[in-house]
Amino acid sequence: MAQFCFGVDVGGTTIKMGLFDTVGNVLDKWEIVTRTEDHGVEILPDIAKSIQAKMAEKSIEKSAVIGVGIGIPGPVDGKGVVYECANLGWGVFNVNDTLSEILQGIPVRTGNDANVAALGEMWRGGGQGFDNLVMVTLGTGVGGGIIVDGEILTGAIGAGGEIGHIHVQDGEPDQCGCGNYGCLEQYASATGMVRIANRYLDSFTGETCLKKGELSAKDLWDAVKAGDKAADEICEQFGKYLGEGLAAVACVTNPQIFVIGGGVSKAGEVILPYVEKNYKPIVFRGSRDAKFTLAKLGNDAGIYGAAKLVL
Amino acid sequence: MAQFCFGVDVGGTTIKMGLFDTVGNVLDKWEIVTRTEDHGVEILPDIAKSIQAKMAEKSIEKSAVIGVGIGIPGPVDGKGVVYECANLGWGVFNVNDTLSEILQGIPVRTGNDANVAALGEMWRGGGQGFDNLVMVTLGTGVGGGIIVDGEILTGAIGAGGEIGHIHVQDGEPDQCGCGNYGCLEQYASATGMVRIANRYLDSFTGETCLKKGELSAKDLWDAVKAGDKAADEICEQFGKYLGEGLAAVACVTNPQIFVIGGGVSKAGEVILPYVEKNYKPIVFRGSRDAKFTLAKLGNDAGIYGAAKLVL
Repeated sequence: MAQFCFGVDVGGTTIKMGLFDTVGNVLDKWEIVTRTEDHGVEILPDIAKSIQAKMAEKSIEKSAVIGVGIGIPGPVDGKGVVYECANLGWGVFNVNDTLSEILQGIPVRTGNDANVAALGEMWRGGGQGFDNLVMVTLGTGVGGGIIVDGEILTGAIGAGGEIGHIHVQDGEPDQCGCGNYGCLEQYASATGMVRIANRYLDSFTGETCLKKGELSAKDLWDAVKAGDKAADEICEQFGKYLGEGLAAVACVTNPQIFVIGGGVSKAGEVILPYVEKNYKPIVFRGSRDAKFTLAKLGNDAGIYGAAKLVL
Repeated sequence: MAQFCFGVDVGGTTIKMGLFDTVGNVLDKWEIVTRTEDHGVEILPDIAKSIQAKMAEKSIEKSAVIGVGIGIPGPVDGKGVVYECANLGWGVFNVNDTLSEILQGIPVRTGNDANVAALGEMWRGGGQGFDNLVMVTLGTGVGGGIIVDGEILTGAIGAGGEIGHIHVQDGEPDQCGCGNYGCLEQYASATGMVRIANRYLDSFTGETCLKKGELSAKDLWDAVKAGDKAADEICEQFGKYLGEGLAAVACVTNPQIFVIGGGVSKAGEVILPYVEKNYKPIVFRGSRDAKFTLAKLGNDAGIYGAAKLVL
């Protein structure tokens, strides 16, 4: 009998859902709205209804469903307990048990969304063929997902892989979203790149196509591709912070590969040398040959990784 | 029938060995010499002979031995392959298979010595009751051992937990033993503390009991205990580097506890606040409440952890 599983990626505004076979082919994918009102009390019932409707539509029996994997935008421990997921309005409770009960016993496994995306990239994306992997998501923030011997590194209370909050700079006057000062995220996220660019342009007097106060991370990489010297120096700063942060990660987990995703990575291969050349000279030799590659699954990494959670 | 296991801690000059029951009581311990000549070809046969002699002495049948665990001073992967263990003269080969064959099939498991010591401290030492733990050994160098969900974090080629080589300082003129510049080990090891002390004293003109060029890490902590201001400021530097390095580790693995061992830790509880007060303000909030404690097993951590490898 054919077997199936579901991968669910819960975001603050939409929930992405996928129906998978057991070898990683997505058979169908769709989205539903995230209803965050009333402390998000309808989120899990909505997911259950959508899964049950899909099972009816495809004539899939309950016994043919291996399980449902879910990625959540917040800390989750190894047993599926979420700790105050602010984006969803959730407090502390066990997602595995709650959703499994609504689904009449179908097994559920829950992970942090950045960790789950890393699992997806390992399974069917840029990290295929490796089982010791670090995924870095460079978006509004810097997210991290760490895979050790094929398993997500969750940590004691689900705060493993929070590599965007490695301290990389003393004396930073601006505060990070986490409350600290000088986190990697403040320099290597899309937002962070713009921040360091504006600072750089404050004292820059040469010629550049960059316009202080009106630029995006994409503009910076476009300018690099066009040979702009100021953009090159700004991206060098980005690379230095990120290379240093990832070298610290490598001294801890000794990965085979770094997979770089998120909005900033859409600039393409151009970003990799900036990171790699700053990583290599300072990392411990046992991790010096780790590869750097771009993520491949884009916004689908979450549903792939979630599905993999239950396989 | 009573069951037993052996824990073996291989050092460059002596091999420590212990006979254990299955709940972690050491029944006997002894040492043999490490014969490193001829690329260390006699080391494993010597260990096997010593184990067999102990079994004969105690009338222990082969069937009563669950296994032999070994800690090695170099990188070891999850299958027991060592990668060029310079101190022992070893090249690349599988220790598990080789020793098990000499021991006529008794199961053998091998780990890196710093990782194995961490396992020992978790099992019967300062980290008892925790299964997400980071052990830091502050000796001639800075060794690290990381336990995630009760298991050693080995990494792709056994270079996981090399936290002494996290880059913590740009522009360092002196070279680390690993070949890099600015590694944590250069500031937080016993040797590193002396180095930063001598630098500090170069430009220090106030009163101090410290004598440049003639001091040890122990002298520094003794001076701190005696209220010496210069020693306090030097140890503050030590704490800043170590706190920053451990905060980076925590952003990766989210441990419950840091266990600090090695020669420097013999100074006692006095060292903990220097590290902790520099760790807390910069670490991600999910790891802010991690505990700091001293190692308890001293030089025996290796044999305890090695025994635990096979249980």
